[in-house]
Order: sequence, then C-alpha cells, then structure tokens
Amino acid sequence: MHTRTVFFISDGTGITAETFGNAVLAQFEMKPRHVRLPFTDTVDKAHQAVRQINHTAELEGVRPIVFTTLANMEVLEVIETGCKGMLLDMFGTFVRPLEIELAVKSNHRIGRFSDVSKSKEYDARIAAIDFSLAHDDGQSNRDLEGADVILVGVSRSGKTPTSLYLAMQHGLKAANYPLIPEDFERKQLPPALMPHRKKIFGLTIQPERLSQIRNERRPDSRYASLENCRNEVSEAEAMMRRAGIRWLSTTTKSIEEIATTILQELKPERLVY
Amino acid sequence: MHTRTVFFISDGTGITAETFGNAVLAQFEMKPRHVRLPFTDTVDKAHQAVRQINHTAELEGVRPIVFTTLANMEVLEVIETGCKGMLLDMFGTFVRPLEIELAVKSNHRIGRFSDVSKSKEYDARIAAIDFSLAHDDGQSNRDLEGADVILVGVSRSGKTPTSLYLAMQHGLKAANYPLIPEDFERKQLPPALMPHRKKIFGLTIQPERLSQIRNERRPDSRYASLENCRNEVSEAEAMMRRAGIRWLSTTTKSIEEIATTILQELKPERLVY
Repeated sequence: MHTRTVFFISDGTGITAETFGNAVLAQFEMKPRHVRLPFTDTVDKAHQAVRQINHTAELEGVRPIVFTTLANMEVLEVIETGCKGMLLDMFGTFVRPLEIELAVKSNHRIGRFSDVSKSKEYDARIAAIDFSLAHDDGQSNRDLEGADVILVGVSRSGKTPTSLYLAMQHGLKAANYPLIPEDFERKQLPPALMPHRKKIFGLTIQPERLSQIRNERRPDSRYASLENCRNEVSEAEAMMRRAGIRWLSTTTKSIEEIATTILQELKPERLVY
Repeated sequence: MHTRTVFFISDGTGITAETFGNAVLAQFEMKPRHVRLPFTDTVDKAHQAVRQINHTAELEGVRPIVFTTLANMEVLEVIETGCKGMLLDMFGTFVRPLEIELAVKSNHRIGRFSDVSKSKEYDARIAAIDFSLAHDDGQSNRDLEGADVILVGVSRSGKTPTSLYLAMQHGLKAANYPLIPEDFERKQLPPALMPHRKKIFGLTIQPERLSQIRNERRPDSRYASLENCRNEVSEAEAMMRRAGIRWLSTTTKSIEEIATTILQELKPERLVY
C-alpha cells in the first residue's frame, strides 16, 4: 500500500481538526503520516499549505486527505480552489445546515479560545490545576471543602493522571489520596476525608496489571510483587465496599474513559466543558 | 430566544463529539444547554437517549441539536429512526466518502482507546506525566537528557500547566524551571540547563497581567507588585535574548495555543498525537 499523508489545517491550534480527524481515521486500518498546519490564518499561509499538499500528492502518487477547520472563508477558498487533496471541510459541512436551523449567520470566529486574559472560565481552569497539584497524593488536607472530587486508591491505580485530566479538561478541583497500610489496619478511609464522603470516588485495578506497572518503577521490590499487590487491592476494595463509595476498575481504561465515568457518576455542578 | 439543548451521543467517551461540536457551535452566538450521553453502546441505551431527546424537544418547543460519533450501526439506526432532534452524524458524514477514497470498509471500532493495558503509546503517555510532575518547577535536575522540552520563565508565566498539557496530550516529557533572582544576578540560565539549550523554550508575560495573576495568590505582596513584576519580566526577557533561546508571550494565550506554538518551533521527534 502507498504511504498516505493526512493534513490537518486550521486557523487556530488545529487540535479540534486533529482530534476529530483521528477519530474518523481510527475507523480504518491505516497508519497515515500526520501533518498539522495550525495557525493557517492568512491567504499567504493558505497558498503555502496548498503547495505542500500538492507536492506531497505528487511524491506519493495518491491524493492526501485534508481535514480543515477553517472559520476564515478567504483561507478556505484558497485551499478549496488549489488543493489536489481530498478535502474534508469539517466546519462548512455542519455550520451551513446549522445556519438554516438556527436562522442566524455564523460569526466565523477563529478557534475556541479568544483572549484568555479576559476569561473567567480560563482562570477557573488554571485554579483547578493549581488545586489538583497541591492536593496530589494526599499532600494537603487544607480546603478539601473546595474540592469537586476526591479520588482514592492504592499507589499507581491511576489517581494522579485522572486528577490532572479532570482539572485541565473540565476545570474540576480534584484531590487524590493514596490508600496505605495504616488505612487498611484501621479499616477506614483516611480520617480527613470522612466529612467529604459524597465527593469520594475510588479507583481499583487488577493486581496483575498493578504489579506490572509497579515493576517498571521499582523492579523486583516487595512493593511491586504480585503477592503484595493482591493484598493491597483486596484490602482497598473491601474498604471501599464498606465505606459505600462508588468505584471503578482502571485496568483497561484510558484516563479519558476513567474521567468520563467519574463525571457521569458524580455529576459535579461546576462543570466546564 | 428559546432554550436550545445540544446532545452529544457517543459509544465511547463522547469527548470527540463534544470537542468538535463545541468548535462548530462556537461559530454561533448561543449558549445552549449541553447534555453528554457517553457509552451509548447498546440498542437499549439508544432507545433511552431517543426518549430523552424527544422529551426535551417537547418541553422546549424546538428540536434539540444532536451530535453523534457512533461506530455501532445498530445504535445509530435507533437514533436516526426515532429521534426528533436535528441529527448531525459526524462519523457517517466523513467515514462514507473515506471508504470510497480508500477502497476499504471501515472497521466500526468504538472509541479512540482500545485496551490501554496493552498499549505502548499509552504507557509512554503515563511515563511523560510522571516525568513532568517530577520535573515541575525545577524540582529535579536528574535525567534532563530524557526531557523532550524544558520550559523556563518567571513564576506564574504558565510553565506548569503547559508542561502538564504537553505530557498529557502529546506524551512529551516536559521539565520546567523558574527563573529567579539568583539567575538574574548571574545573568545566565540555570547552570543545570546549559547542556540542554536546544530543548529550552522560554515563556514570558506582560507585567500587568502577571501582577494581576500573582495578586490573586498573594494579594498586596512585593512578589505581586507591578514594579517587581516589571523588573522580573525585563530581566527574564533580557536573559532569554542573550541566551538565544526561543520564547513567546503567554499573556493572551490558552495552554493549547502555547503548546501548539512550542510544538511547531521545537518539533520534538517523539510526538504522540
């Protein structure tokens, strides 16, 4: 099979073009070469993009696939007119029918982000990242009332990446607490968390997978041994069951899937999408 | 104007549906109500979704807008047949022309993530998050050879969120170092960074905006005073110019825009998109 190149052209960051383009391409068994052309916001840059696409078409002998999210009509026109790729105009395809449905013209605003220094929503997102970092791994019990979510689980069950993702993508203040031998002996959740039970969500993981992850960090340690992992996981699950908190297994799940499940369950009010 | 509800239906997390749907909706001056229906992966759940959409249509007196990213054809069919919303089938619209272009059938794979416990790419992403956390705010000089990017800048110029974003979304190992008075006195970048100059990227920010951000943290402190911010920023910019490193101003930019610009400039090889 020929090499195929996929271009993602945007007048903003190109993240939307690429997220969506990748989801569409995941429907096919192919590993195309990716070229992202962000900030393509002038007619000059559009002509450059056209030259690059057409050059690739010649070299590879097949036309490249070109995903665009362009709000600037002049830029789009240059690409529509000159480009020898297969053009998939993601905005035009859906914006035009929506203009009819909503009976208004689109504003051709470029990108999802306008000047962030004037955005309260953006400030909240940065504050959520600060909070989640300060409350990573049980570092601080201060201001837990301010938390939207508190994750608990054994070491390396996925708490830290999930907390940071919830903060970064959803503007949620996410604290996380490790469950450790002292908790298992007391057979109770960490005492500082008790007043906030409604916000707690547990993460668990298969002992075999946990042992594999821990072995990458500390090979052949007791910490990583399958026996120890089995023991910690079974203690942690028993505790979560007793405490009556919601929990899920992260074994085969991505950060995005874990976060989406938590959001569905906890439905926190302050949700920035 | 009536309230409008927008539904995002997916058999996976729904993140792609929502990212793309939001970008399309940003082209219109409207603040619709958002309902995300992730993991809609059975005919039963599809019928539930249809009931919810049609109920909303009745209540609001206008048809809801329904973005779908559904790989499961049975689920899609239930929604196409029963739903009284305006259906925007994001996969079908682009997958069908691609099937013709590529001369293969799509595989109807659900979601971007298959079993992550078997994915090397996913492991690399988690390792990048670990690395970036361990190298946040100049915490560690260890293993800087392993870094893909090293960000420098004054306190609160945007280094930490950008590092975490680069790790989480692009699987890049991103260290970050604060520029502090000792560095300004020595008039040189932190010595530990000198061997890695090619990987360094500077962040700067307008003193007025910096003072505003710092005042939220430590109101009326010398640290947050406009005079001190002006001084730090001018020292930092002079140092970056002398060192000949690339840099940008974060004043009005989102994390995504900063990260995209850095990627364009540094073009690190190990790039997970």
